[in-house]
Amino acid sequence: MTATAADSGREFFTTRTVAEALAGFRPARRTPPETVPVTAAHGRVPAHPVTAPRSLPGFARSTVDGYAVRAADTYGVSEGLPGYLQVTGAVLMGAEPTVAVTPSAAVAMPTGGVLPPGADAVVMIEYTHEAMTGTIEVVRPVAPGEGVVRADEDATEGAELVPAGRPLRAQDLGMLSAAGVTTVSVCARPRVTIFSTGDEVVPPETVELRPGQVRDATATALAAMVAEAGGEPASGGIVPDDPALLDAALRAALPASDVIVISAGSSVGARDETADVVAQLGPPGIWCHGLSIKPGKPTLLADCGGVPIIGLPGNPRSALVVFRLLGTPLIRLVGGCSTPPPEPSVRARLTRDLPSASGRLDVVQVRVADGAATPVFGLSALLSVLTAADGFLVIPEEATGLDAGSEVEITLYR
Amino acid sequence: MTATAADSGREFFTTRTVAEALAGFRPARRTPPETVPVTAAHGRVPAHPVTAPRSLPGFARSTVDGYAVRAADTYGVSEGLPGYLQVTGAVLMGAEPTVAVTPSAAVAMPTGGVLPPGADAVVMIEYTHEAMTGTIEVVRPVAPGEGVVRADEDATEGAELVPAGRPLRAQDLGMLSAAGVTTVSVCARPRVTIFSTGDEVVPPETVELRPGQVRDATATALAAMVAEAGGEPASGGIVPDDPALLDAALRAALPASDVIVISAGSSVGARDETADVVAQLGPPGIWCHGLSIKPGKPTLLADCGGVPIIGLPGNPRSALVVFRLLGTPLIRLVGGCSTPPPEPSVRARLTRDLPSASGRLDVVQVRVADGAATPVFGLSALLSVLTAADGFLVIPEEATGLDAGSEVEITLYR
Repeated sequence: MTATAADSGREFFTTRTVAEALAGFRPARRTPPETVPVTAAHGRVPAHPVTAPRSLPGFARSTVDGYAVRAADTYGVSEGLPGYLQVTGAVLMGAEPTVAVTPSAAVAMPTGGVLPPGADAVVMIEYTHEAMTGTIEVVRPVAPGEGVVRADEDATEGAELVPAGRPLRAQDLGMLSAAGVTTVSVCARPRVTIFSTGDEVVPPETVELRPGQVRDATATALAAMVAEAGGEPASGGIVPDDPALLDAALRAALPASDVIVISAGSSVGARDETADVVAQLGPPGIWCHGLSIKPGKPTLLADCGGVPIIGLPGNPRSALVVFRLLGTPLIRLVGGCSTPPPEPSVRARLTRDLPSASGRLDVVQVRVADGAATPVFGLSALLSVLTAADGFLVIPEEATGLDAGSEVEITLYR
Repeated sequence: MTATAADSGREFFTTRTVAEALAGFRPARRTPPETVPVTAAHGRVPAHPVTAPRSLPGFARSTVDGYAVRAADTYGVSEGLPGYLQVTGAVLMGAEPTVAVTPSAAVAMPTGGVLPPGADAVVMIEYTHEAMTGTIEVVRPVAPGEGVVRADEDATEGAELVPAGRPLRAQDLGMLSAAGVTTVSVCARPRVTIFSTGDEVVPPETVELRPGQVRDATATALAAMVAEAGGEPASGGIVPDDPALLDAALRAALPASDVIVISAGSSVGARDETADVVAQLGPPGIWCHGLSIKPGKPTLLADCGGVPIIGLPGNPRSALVVFRLLGTPLIRLVGGCSTPPPEPSVRARLTRDLPSASGRLDVVQVRVADGAATPVFGLSALLSVLTAADGFLVIPEEATGLDAGSEVEITLYR
């Protein structure tokens, strides 16, 4: 990877590929652990593995409605030659057995009941008949352990219940609850401060625009993407095209930010000013300025005094494309998420040729229907291209395009 | 589909297939619309399509840094034979142009600036050179419309910005913000009351269990799944195995619930009692009792006085499997979500044969690595089977099993 200069000679002094950025831009910052209730931990990232404080379920349980027996008492029985066992009691749900199983005896069991002493299996009720009051026929043999969950079959004491680094799923929370774990140490959500820059940008609630003004679309969308990635978005507001004001705004945000995101303006001048300000914020500074991606070339990556900074293109669509590819993984990294959740995707046939320049990654928005992926074209200034799309495909750096009819992998929006 | 009777003759008087349940159990209940800020609407379901109150961007904008020109003034120019234009002014970001473009004139433009009157295209700065102060050479021609976004190119006034029924994605929120739409009418989150039943069930915070007791794992996991489906979970608490108490608890919950979920106990007796209570709650009553699915057969579906009720098996794993297949779509239906978000999935080779009974849908938990799907086996009483899994596959009703090596579609947990 070598630095390149654009035709104008004014920008992109350290252009990188997306693959280089994903592999090489790995800021050291990590959020600290914090303790949260398990009931509020869905999607949160455990800071450490959680182990079972005790074995589960903790006692041998019946898995069926039937009779607790000594398995040996059922060997050889059949429909034609049933065994006869004396019913000496019944186990109640949630209660300790009051009777042990002795030879040739059986104890009535509900599903989930505690296996009584002496028993090593449970015969399903379907394979028994009441022969006379207090006596059952057993028409199928059971092996030891049949119809029973062992006391440590769901988890042995000390076993890992959930790993570190993977967002907690519904069943993980269930397992923690089963084990009596009610709080969990998770990585704090990265605090992500989102700035919009530009003299033309006004808040979304502005009803009437003056000529040349645009409402801030990017910050709203970025906040949603930050939350989706496990971060906690904070609004840095809209900063005019004035380096001194941007410098002051960024310095004020640094102490309370784990990541800073800047929609850096679309014009070369605005981008240069942003880069100049970021370069002065602190070491190690700018990691790259310019990304071999379409749309999204004017992207800036930096680490300023330990706070990663992403400078995004001013075009909303370009900004969101880049943030999905680079911002989401960065927030996950800072938030301790080493096993990101899977993204929905689908394979589909491309409906038309897609040219692409070699050495540049192209992100193409598509609609998907009936196994066919149809590109949605439009200028990178248009958000409607993104709202019309069901997902996107990536043409890798080394490719020079894709042919109509080829099967492509589409990452789907959700 | 006909009703079947289990061997014991005591249960499953109206068994249905999962496909029948998905197609046929369609309660009429829908949540009312409510208005929320766009900034809090990520994942919410619009109750109506939202249209553009005005065209977007609202004015013709430059998409590049360069010079606004009359395209005709550039026809025929080349590197060898440049055209010469007089620079008569500059457009500032966010400001109305103060000068029109006249024949043989050019106005300096930043990306995103307002196209001045008289201009119909913008030449990129890369294709110009400053010939002398106040004059530029243009070395490539532009066509009318080049370098420009039309005033209504992102949205025409009245065009649909987001459809009803599809959860709002990040870019949708961006588009609404761009259009100055700051609030949106969405379907209220379905209020889902979750009950656990069983004398053996105790709250997760119970440190020491008495013999036979189990902590309530299902309610915690269900609450997370309800939220994931767009619902608002409410805890109904743990109800002992007493029909009168269950009846009272359900009747108390009905007025404030859009859906009720009951972990109905694992034993036949507990399930029968739950069904008897639900049957008395109101018309039209029980839709099915018993589902042709493994695990999860003891499932109850009902609509009582307009409130859909799902009775789940008592085994946590069975309960969560059934809730994912039937509860999630039900909550989406009630919450107005007609276009559910895509689920992550992957195709993989099965590492071993999977037998299955015809007429029954089997849900098999799997680990996925390197394109291979390995089943995780274990009793339906074990939650560890679910926490060890990356996803699940479904063996449809008509199949009698899957062969090792066959390619299967895995729905991935996230």
